[in-house]
Amino acid sequence: MTKDGRKQQAAADLRLREVLRVPRGEQIDLGAYDTRTAYDPRTGPGPKDKSAGLKDTARMGKRLAELQERLWAAGTTGDVRRVLLVLQGMDTSGKGGTVKHVVGLFHPAGCRVKGFKVPTPEEREHDFLWRIEKEIPRPGEIGAFDRSHYEDVLVPRVRALVPREEIERRYDEINRFEQRLADDRVTVVKCFLHISPDQQRRRLLRRLDRPDKRWKFSPSDIDDRALWPAYQEAYEIALHRCSTPHAPWYLIPADRKWFRNWAVARLLLEHLEALDPRYPEPDYDLEECRKRLLAH
Amino acid sequence: MTKDGRKQQAAADLRLREVLRVPRGEQIDLGAYDTRTAYDPRTGPGPKDKSAGLKDTARMGKRLAELQERLWAAGTTGDVRRVLLVLQGMDTSGKGGTVKHVVGLFHPAGCRVKGFKVPTPEEREHDFLWRIEKEIPRPGEIGAFDRSHYEDVLVPRVRALVPREEIERRYDEINRFEQRLADDRVTVVKCFLHISPDQQRRRLLRRLDRPDKRWKFSPSDIDDRALWPAYQEAYEIALHRCSTPHAPWYLIPADRKWFRNWAVARLLLEHLEALDPRYPEPDYDLEECRKRLLAH
Repeated sequence: MTKDGRKQQAAADLRLREVLRVPRGEQIDLGAYDTRTAYDPRTGPGPKDKSAGLKDTARMGKRLAELQERLWAAGTTGDVRRVLLVLQGMDTSGKGGTVKHVVGLFHPAGCRVKGFKVPTPEEREHDFLWRIEKEIPRPGEIGAFDRSHYEDVLVPRVRALVPREEIERRYDEINRFEQRLADDRVTVVKCFLHISPDQQRRRLLRRLDRPDKRWKFSPSDIDDRALWPAYQEAYEIALHRCSTPHAPWYLIPADRKWFRNWAVARLLLEHLEALDPRYPEPDYDLEECRKRLLAH
Repeated sequence: MTKDGRKQQAAADLRLREVLRVPRGEQIDLGAYDTRTAYDPRTGPGPKDKSAGLKDTARMGKRLAELQERLWAAGTTGDVRRVLLVLQGMDTSGKGGTVKHVVGLFHPAGCRVKGFKVPTPEEREHDFLWRIEKEIPRPGEIGAFDRSHYEDVLVPRVRALVPREEIERRYDEINRFEQRLADDRVTVVKCFLHISPDQQRRRLLRRLDRPDKRWKFSPSDIDDRALWPAYQEAYEIALHRCSTPHAPWYLIPADRKWFRNWAVARLLLEHLEALDPRYPEPDYDLEECRKRLLAH
């Protein structure tokens, strides 16, 4: 086998979900995780540079769109399976960019994209999972959450807006909720987009520098940035407590956008390939229909 | 000016919305409209062939995404404007394909795509506009309807499911509804995808031939096809009665997919350029934020 052949074989064998999965039952230290890559790119199985990464992501796009169509088609005849991509991460970690570049690879009609902001007064009148429940993808759909129910164990914890016992209860409620989703045949793919504080500074400064990016900036982003260690700790606890067998967390090195997009696309591909949705068999007489059509 | 220069100038001057707009107050004859092109491609202002059309659509994609971002950004500070693309046409006319190739040019987070099927029992308990109202794009969004409230003056008319007076009333209700949308700053772009019966036969046969397309086919498509003249007449009446100054109909030659996509993209571009949404000015002190960021 040639060197290129070996590389291709290694890529085919790669199960990125195993590489990026947050281990269960272990307290994790985000500082120990690389924000640029998940393995040594010189010897590792993924794309070795940006150009290869972009090319591989585009190549995956065709396969993702095909699997989505199959999922959708199967959904028209009773297959209730669907996929939900959950994106979390610090400001500028690229949740919106991932939606654009990865979810953008799918057919828009089969996608349900939802960004969760500060809860509205109506949302606050309900349990924190109420607004989430309404946005769960329907059978055959690919859903994507830009922020999610995890905000409710992050901001309130860091800013001490809610009693600690209530936060503790929420981890269990989230796990039970996600167990129920799994029972309902929702494949939940939770990605934490992991960036370094330096990378965040560069991206925030860029937002200030570019007139077309200033609207994305808010001075409160700097206040949150000052709480970086507290947020990282809140993420460590959420990732640790809620990386379950039915809905594991994946830790995505996100300092480099092309790698982040490649990794999320690859994760979705692995999950969709495991689902292996099938086009339904026609429930009509093919030959008779062909004849009728040719007749007029 | 060189020949290429003149061609480019002509393309820049083209206002496709004027070329494709269904004239107001005139009974129209769909049979008189070309299903392949809107003008002589040898002398007309648009792309002269498929390769040029695909290239121009891709080029417009960047501009469309930028205008969408501006619309979205403006929406975050009180600009309530939004755009709703309504797609109608016979089976296989390419409503889904237009969503994929044209709406797919936008950022998925800012799009609200809805396909309307046969009304559910719950939907039937309400006025025919009830289910439509719920799916109107929110400020800053690009909405897309694959089928719409127009189904309620097509199928019931052709199949005599509803008394004729009720259908007559619906045209006026639609016009008042769309007037209200315009008052709410919703730019409605209604596209009728016009195909020939021969083209439909080819596409239906292709659905039967390809195992990955069979799920899209239903024998009832052949029944509808047998009612082609009645459907064309129902469309003629709807286009005539509901092509208003605040929400005109556009007639898209749709036998060639690349031309259909090009034309719809171009129409959206012209409407978004006319809206000319602006990035909001920052309401914070740029220099102070820059200093704070550089400090930690």
